[in-house]
Amino acid sequence: MTTDPEATIRPFSHLFPSMVAKTPDIDSGEQPPFNSPAHGKDAPLDTPPVINHGVDYVIVFRYPIKSSDDRLQLEQKVVDGFEALATKLTHAQLFFEVKQGQERGTLLVLVGCPQARLYAEYKAQRARDFLLGITVESTDLVPTNSNKDDLSASSPLRQGFTEAVRLQLIYDILTSSEKAGGADISPHVDPFVDSIMPLHNDNFNKKWISTWSKKWLIDNDDLCNIRNHFGEKIAFYFAFVQFYFLWLMIPAGLGVLVYFTHSNTLSIWYSISMLVWGITFTEMWKRKQMELAVQWGVLNCSKHEKQMSAFKGDKTVPDQITGEERPFVPAWKIILRRALTLPAVALGAAFLMVIVGLVFVLQLFLHEYYTGPFQKFLHYAPTIGYVLLIPTMSGIYSKWVRLLTNWEMHQTETSWEYNYTQKIFVANFLVSYLSLFFIAWIYIPFGDHVLPYLNEFNVSHDHKKVDFQRLQDQLVYFIVTGQIVGFLTEMVLPYAMSWAMPKVKNISTKLVHSVSSKTDVGDNINSNTTPDIALSPEENLDFTKKLDRETGLEEYNIYTDYVEMVIQFGYVAMFSPVWPLTALCCVANNWVELRSDAVKICKYTRRPIPLRAENIGPWLRNMETIVWLSSITMGSFAYLFHPTTDLHSSYVPLYTLMAILLSEHLFAGLRLAIQSIISVIPSWPDLRIKKEDYMIKRNWLQRLDGSNSNISPKTLDEKITHDPMAKHWSKGMDSESRAEAAIRLVRNQFKSG
Amino acid sequence: MTTDPEATIRPFSHLFPSMVAKTPDIDSGEQPPFNSPAHGKDAPLDTPPVINHGVDYVIVFRYPIKSSDDRLQLEQKVVDGFEALATKLTHAQLFFEVKQGQERGTLLVLVGCPQARLYAEYKAQRARDFLLGITVESTDLVPTNSNKDDLSASSPLRQGFTEAVRLQLIYDILTSSEKAGGADISPHVDPFVDSIMPLHNDNFNKKWISTWSKKWLIDNDDLCNIRNHFGEKIAFYFAFVQFYFLWLMIPAGLGVLVYFTHSNTLSIWYSISMLVWGITFTEMWKRKQMELAVQWGVLNCSKHEKQMSAFKGDKTVPDQITGEERPFVPAWKIILRRALTLPAVALGAAFLMVIVGLVFVLQLFLHEYYTGPFQKFLHYAPTIGYVLLIPTMSGIYSKWVRLLTNWEMHQTETSWEYNYTQKIFVANFLVSYLSLFFIAWIYIPFGDHVLPYLNEFNVSHDHKKVDFQRLQDQLVYFIVTGQIVGFLTEMVLPYAMSWAMPKVKNISTKLVHSVSSKTDVGDNINSNTTPDIALSPEENLDFTKKLDRETGLEEYNIYTDYVEMVIQFGYVAMFSPVWPLTALCCVANNWVELRSDAVKICKYTRRPIPLRAENIGPWLRNMETIVWLSSITMGSFAYLFHPTTDLHSSYVPLYTLMAILLSEHLFAGLRLAIQSIISVIPSWPDLRIKKEDYMIKRNWLQRLDGSNSNISPKTLDEKITHDPMAKHWSKGMDSESRAEAAIRLVRNQFKSG
Repeated sequence: MTTDPEATIRPFSHLFPSMVAKTPDIDSGEQPPFNSPAHGKDAPLDTPPVINHGVDYVIVFRYPIKSSDDRLQLEQKVVDGFEALATKLTHAQLFFEVKQGQERGTLLVLVGCPQARLYAEYKAQRARDFLLGITVESTDLVPTNSNKDDLSASSPLRQGFTEAVRLQLIYDILTSSEKAGGADISPHVDPFVDSIMPLHNDNFNKKWISTWSKKWLIDNDDLCNIRNHFGEKIAFYFAFVQFYFLWLMIPAGLGVLVYFTHSNTLSIWYSISMLVWGITFTEMWKRKQMELAVQWGVLNCSKHEKQMSAFKGDKTVPDQITGEERPFVPAWKIILRRALTLPAVALGAAFLMVIVGLVFVLQLFLHEYYTGPFQKFLHYAPTIGYVLLIPTMSGIYSKWVRLLTNWEMHQTETSWEYNYTQKIFVANFLVSYLSLFFIAWIYIPFGDHVLPYLNEFNVSHDHKKVDFQRLQDQLVYFIVTGQIVGFLTEMVLPYAMSWAMPKVKNISTKLVHSVSSKTDVGDNINSNTTPDIALSPEENLDFTKKLDRETGLEEYNIYTDYVEMVIQFGYVAMFSPVWPLTALCCVANNWVELRSDAVKICKYTRRPIPLRAENIGPWLRNMETIVWLSSITMGSFAYLFHPTTDLHSSYVPLYTLMAILLSEHLFAGLRLAIQSIISVIPSWPDLRIKKEDYMIKRNWLQRLDGSNSNISPKTLDEKITHDPMAKHWSKGMDSESRAEAAIRLVRNQFKSG
Repeated sequence: MTTDPEATIRPFSHLFPSMVAKTPDIDSGEQPPFNSPAHGKDAPLDTPPVINHGVDYVIVFRYPIKSSDDRLQLEQKVVDGFEALATKLTHAQLFFEVKQGQERGTLLVLVGCPQARLYAEYKAQRARDFLLGITVESTDLVPTNSNKDDLSASSPLRQGFTEAVRLQLIYDILTSSEKAGGADISPHVDPFVDSIMPLHNDNFNKKWISTWSKKWLIDNDDLCNIRNHFGEKIAFYFAFVQFYFLWLMIPAGLGVLVYFTHSNTLSIWYSISMLVWGITFTEMWKRKQMELAVQWGVLNCSKHEKQMSAFKGDKTVPDQITGEERPFVPAWKIILRRALTLPAVALGAAFLMVIVGLVFVLQLFLHEYYTGPFQKFLHYAPTIGYVLLIPTMSGIYSKWVRLLTNWEMHQTETSWEYNYTQKIFVANFLVSYLSLFFIAWIYIPFGDHVLPYLNEFNVSHDHKKVDFQRLQDQLVYFIVTGQIVGFLTEMVLPYAMSWAMPKVKNISTKLVHSVSSKTDVGDNINSNTTPDIALSPEENLDFTKKLDRETGLEEYNIYTDYVEMVIQFGYVAMFSPVWPLTALCCVANNWVELRSDAVKICKYTRRPIPLRAENIGPWLRNMETIVWLSSITMGSFAYLFHPTTDLHSSYVPLYTLMAILLSEHLFAGLRLAIQSIISVIPSWPDLRIKKEDYMIKRNWLQRLDGSNSNISPKTLDEKITHDPMAKHWSKGMDSESRAEAAIRLVRNQFKSG
């Protein structure tokens, strides 16, 4: 369906996916699927479906009860802080309500948004989008049926907002600057403001999980639903995983074939076909994400770059394009700082490499050679190292690069995010692949030279032959244990925690409860006199429970999920020839991954704030880098581990380099070829954009002056006769006689000839 | 001046460069510089300056006098052909007039265009440009001061056209399809229509040459003048050569330094700095040509792709974007054909390689080893080979690839041109560099192994040591002789011809003249009764002379000029370390080149048809390829010819590969770094485009409904109170009291704490 341009060219197509993708099959229950407003055709028009009693966001306001300095002073500080927050919300024309948090020293500020405010924000955003070149139907800007504040039932804007759009708009109101009419609240910048979070729509979540656990493949509608509920950023993640999952089938099948047919799995043809797969996959994803961006109407949305509230700059200058004042820093300064961070990052990476190296060497030694006392116990030391030591170290590393990235002075959140992600990726790259590279390129070729020295340290060890098997074991170890550990930490651990924590809390915060419950009652009483959120007591109780539970969860971090996938892609692309079943394992893993991520988001993390995105950001580039590296690894492996290769000859390094040189050029060539082939195949989104653009302009032209575009030369005949130029040309003769004169010349020629 | 965005943001800035760039200093003569209408402020408004008596184009109509088949039949064919042409011109509402050509069997159809027609075409083109996304001032489309057919003196369109724009428009009328109101004339497709040519503006040419021969540097105004006279395509060539000329100063200076300080000119640092130069140059040119495109208002103009009149396709389908019918061919077919041409091109290249190889080996043998009879004469054989044999062979090659390119089925002229140029470039590449590569990578490393065998063929030779010197000699030979030969063939030869030909002609075509002169007179007579082009007899005579002379010239071929420059760039980028003075020579050559090209265009070729272009097309990519190759050459040379390298060790090939591998990665890294650095530096054209786009859209918004873009939240206050959402929130309390309630909670906490 996505392959048909017509199907999606509709005004508001990006607001009404239900038009784009037919409503899913499960849309047979008493209520619309996932309860997303977009599908709520049966809901009465004048009352938009209200979720969570109209509470859109919860601002967690956390303050210290006891501190070093004077209590009253602190209390005053807190009160001031809160009052500031309250005024901000009032100015932004948002409803708000305050509840006692579960823990001591937390207030939960429940925020809601009036339809009118939301509508205004929506219009403003539409205009801005249009100005920035984000595809917007012109009808969207010019309500043809007159008055544009029309909130009547007929207006799509009344019931048209998906939850994602609604929440995204409100989040903009909350965070955008005051002169833009926003509340300008940002966590950690405003005093005591700990975080801003939307509340889960339990109905949707239940349905979501139940649907996905039932069906084999995630289809377009499912993605649309996610997009309508969690926003494009999350939707893109799931779209990517699904796309990747499907593409994995190819290497999985190929791998099984090779595994059972070839003794030497490093056959050149297999390596090359894997290379081709890698390139084609990345190229096709480029196209796919373009398609999605068009279908979801978020193309170019990254052009509206949210300014970092942290970024101050040396001075403010008017923005070149929009003319708004914005902080400015000279280019040289930025270049300098970025240049300087490189070595700093390298330092961090080096530190990490040392750690990984140590753990690896330890493991190697214990597994392969060590035969001394405590062998049994020591055998598990390395795994512990991988599971505990390395993660903590990477933690330190990420803190370090966060500092660096802040120091780099990024104007926009996009660019900050990009640079931060890249630095993080380096760490994950090292942790995941370093030991494999080490085995393949150092340990195996040179291991046998080193072994003898072990005797000198008179370490008792049984001399094993260093061989390819070792590499395979390590890879399997990573893929299998890695994925299991990942699953445990993602799913089982949080489940255990969520089960254990309350009991712990009970004990710890008994006193608080006795108090807070009292105050709660007091609160409820006065909320009965002047009604608080209009709820029955038990509703109130449930809602309070929900609030406490969700504020207790931590925020959803999409990066870890992406990292997991991209690293996995690395194993498949770079190391498949070492163990052809890699892809197969990943297929299995990803099928689970897709569902477990769904569960994770629903149950173990706060609801993510819906954000717009037009692609998966830096991850594509990382995968491209990996594909390039895969040409190196596979090329070198194909030579190094070829049965005929004598690893002890002195030519090995040079021939290896040759192999690499060769395969790199092969890679470059293949990519060029594949890209040019794909480029010849027309892509519908591309056409559609051009077409829409053309249409918009044509409309404009016709509005402004219709006759411009179609001038018929006929209208000019009479003008020509008394045209300024005419006097240079024979007036007497019409074209016929002129032609005759010429023909006379021709005939002369022939006569005289 | 180009670096200041404000300076160029004006309506019509691309039509009135005189606004953009101040009129040149030489604008002190009695008439505006180069007599370009754009500067003709003093000219009376109602009479646009008329050049060549209002003759815009000359269509050369050439027909055979005698042929195998029946004369009358042929005559009829010719007459029909001409009548067809005449009707086409009449329908297109163009003036035309016929003259007897100098040679037998040629008619010169002089074509002129009425202002009104021109104006209509202009409007149509503007609209189309706008629809295709070529930056057009909206004022340009909506003449604010009412009626748009206004040809009054005040209208800029009356005297606003530069010669280039005028001619380009008329050319469009001549060539565009009939249903688009054009004449649909295309040489070689229409019977007997040999070519279409504009006439030189001798005034402009005189001034142009005299100015350039006087001044050292070509500045922006000069380029603007060229652009206004010959169109962007030619202007871009000169802009490029000038830009390249300036950038050459760096390696020239560096080269001289190295030449006089280092004994071993292949020092790694020099090579690397040359690499950096190459990368930076190409990157900066990208930016420069973008700047020019914006300044000249031709950005995106390549989007309007002229359909190949030759391209028919399997069937016609409506164009996806504009909805016009256009020929269509399925993608797979195109891919297949392009894939198939590759080996065919390879074949041609191989053939060429053999020829070049032979000539080279011959030269090598004769220069180095041959001591037999006729040594003196044989010594010059190779040079003759280079000057005569190879050019002819490349001629054959280019015919071959032309066939192939036609077979590839290209929809647009752009794509045809691109693919053809690339294939031609391959040939020039081989001819220019092959022998150098051969010497560097085969002859020098392995030469000494081969020499002994010469004895077996008992060829008498004196054994020379094979060394670096040989490579240098060859390079110098190419650069110096190459450039001299080039100059001779470009300048001296045609001069000689132009001097010699008339005399030859006189003899050959005496008979014709006697006839044609008679008919001419006859023509003049009847043109006096019904006035032909309104000229005095002597004017008429001059004009006839001019016509005969210019029709006698051949068309200007811009590719040869580009090839020359890019190949030269190759010598500098790839081989500077071999002979550091390369760049210096090129600087000298290019200074002359710039001027001699000017002379060539003015004197030795027909006036080129003005075409729009937004960049130098495929040549940029070719240069990038060359820079990549330079990393290979310099890397390998740095190792191969290093004093310490023993060329007889068996490691040589492998170490060479290592060197290449290394330098290639160095290249990739450097390019990434340089690109990212440049990207951080803001570029004004980029900003300007965004800004203009933003402005246009803002205008539209305000036209359509002004209040959209700026909604003040203040207007909403009253709505909020009876907002649908309000009922979920406590109505009784205003925000203050709500805040107080919260503060009570805080205080409780502190009390209880």
